[in-house]
Amino acid sequence: MKTLLLSSKDVKEALSMKEVISAVEDGYIAYNKGKVQQPYIVSIEIPANNGETDIKSCYNELNETISVKIASGFYDNGKINDLPTMIGTILLYDGRTGAPLCIMDGSLITGIRTGAAGAISSKLLARKNSRNVAVFGAGGQARMQIYTLCEVMDIKEVRVHSRNKEELTKYKQDIEENTNAKVIICDTVKETMEGADIAISTTPSKKYYIDKTLVKPGMHIVAVGADMPGKNEWDPEVFREAKIVCDSIAQCISRGETRNAIVAGVIKENDIYAEIGQLLAGEKPLRENDDEVTIFDITGMGVQDNVTAVMVYELAKKKGLGEYFEFI
Amino acid sequence: MKTLLLSSKDVKEALSMKEVISAVEDGYIAYNKGKVQQPYIVSIEIPANNGETDIKSCYNELNETISVKIASGFYDNGKINDLPTMIGTILLYDGRTGAPLCIMDGSLITGIRTGAAGAISSKLLARKNSRNVAVFGAGGQARMQIYTLCEVMDIKEVRVHSRNKEELTKYKQDIEENTNAKVIICDTVKETMEGADIAISTTPSKKYYIDKTLVKPGMHIVAVGADMPGKNEWDPEVFREAKIVCDSIAQCISRGETRNAIVAGVIKENDIYAEIGQLLAGEKPLRENDDEVTIFDITGMGVQDNVTAVMVYELAKKKGLGEYFEFI
Repeated sequence: MKTLLLSSKDVKEALSMKEVISAVEDGYIAYNKGKVQQPYIVSIEIPANNGETDIKSCYNELNETISVKIASGFYDNGKINDLPTMIGTILLYDGRTGAPLCIMDGSLITGIRTGAAGAISSKLLARKNSRNVAVFGAGGQARMQIYTLCEVMDIKEVRVHSRNKEELTKYKQDIEENTNAKVIICDTVKETMEGADIAISTTPSKKYYIDKTLVKPGMHIVAVGADMPGKNEWDPEVFREAKIVCDSIAQCISRGETRNAIVAGVIKENDIYAEIGQLLAGEKPLRENDDEVTIFDITGMGVQDNVTAVMVYELAKKKGLGEYFEFI
Repeated sequence: MKTLLLSSKDVKEALSMKEVISAVEDGYIAYNKGKVQQPYIVSIEIPANNGETDIKSCYNELNETISVKIASGFYDNGKINDLPTMIGTILLYDGRTGAPLCIMDGSLITGIRTGAAGAISSKLLARKNSRNVAVFGAGGQARMQIYTLCEVMDIKEVRVHSRNKEELTKYKQDIEENTNAKVIICDTVKETMEGADIAISTTPSKKYYIDKTLVKPGMHIVAVGADMPGKNEWDPEVFREAKIVCDSIAQCISRGETRNAIVAGVIKENDIYAEIGQLLAGEKPLRENDDEVTIFDITGMGVQDNVTAVMVYELAKKKGLGEYFEFI
């Protein structure tokens, strides 16, 4: 049998942001309805090489596929070779037979499905008139969050802060070329947070750098960076009075930003308001007034990869992209 | 960058049994020396489709690669389509950069590295003059166990029993064509066990069918079939007086045949004698007399896939096998 192979270029050609956002919404709802098996995440850490590899898998009853994503971050790549820092592969299997349907580059999908998650949360939880965004970090995910957000809201201003100052000029240029937003490069965290309706954190920080005093009433927070124990971007005190929404409660309490607030004793597990799938399914009210602080904690779910990869696979077949290889 | 793709045919052409046996020995020793990260096994079960998918991953510090094997068993394949029951893929990544080096069909490797494990255990634990083997099941693994065993011992007679009677004629033919052993098809479990020096069980049975009264002094048992909770081939009482060796103690007590003996209260975890890597490293005596019953419990380890896949990858490059695809 033939397995379709898709390069990063093929994947880029196949997918559209709007469709990813819609697919990820469907994925969250499927998870919420119990139609998804999503085993624990496997993590291999290789500190000697400043790298880590995560494996996220999923069986989705609705599209009858099994997806496996192997995603690595090797943080010295680029410095010592010309490879990207984040490298990933997604494999799709037929859930009826185990047959390998498609193997695709997974780097762009990880970026875009995570961006889609943030955008979905802002659509649901940010104030409707949100125009100003604070972004921490100026890498791929800091771009993707803005690109996807601009698909669902009319963003005017992006204030960005990064410890890697050399990235910022290129970041400003990319965002201004691809969206209608103006980018302001900020020297301090405080300056970045000024006037923000939505604040998005995308750094691999191991110590929080956004103090609770910088979080104003009505703000929506998208916490992306902390996705394993030891990572921390937000002052745990920010969680005390906030409406906390998780992609997966199980994952967020074991490896998300939420975990830090629980470990710090600021909140307990039952202070978490909902999973995003519950909000999409209309099971609970969204934002209830203009003053509440809302937080969406993203750890990244296998079902996001699953629905996005299936969408890419279907579109690639229609468009005749990629090559075929007979493994068996 | 280019990723090497290897079909099942390429893999078959690249590997030799002798080399796999030696690679798996090295893998067990590496694991024993703490040079291997081997995360827990991910299992997705899809009872509605009579299928399951396991993901076994490994980072091996010695060859600096990360391996991920996705292996499925869909037991209605063949009946409703012309796909094999067992389908697998192995991915190899550079452990220094996360770059995808090779994607290969994993079905044959799973079979042969499991066969190699059994053969290694027999070389270490069976009586030196072992000539007669009892085999339960007549599928791929029942063949592979004999092929690999015949690489390390002079086997004269194989007595085989299977509930799928129609497989047996072909099994006899295959073994007699590929080895020097004579195959005797047996109607009962008792008849199969008569005179056996080594007894190998390879079925997916959920209820034990080999009674303790059939296990004679001096026998070496290779327990292959039980690799997840709920599977059981051997009377737990067989473990009571035996020298029990595991591939991985952690895995065998959570999902191997050893688990059944512990659950039945016949043994405790500290009655387990050793991991096979300890025996290969010379840390403990092997068989100590001609009367003791020895058991090797195989659950299958990521490091076996790792070392075998790296060997195949290196040999395939040398022989110019496979095709290349640029994912990134």
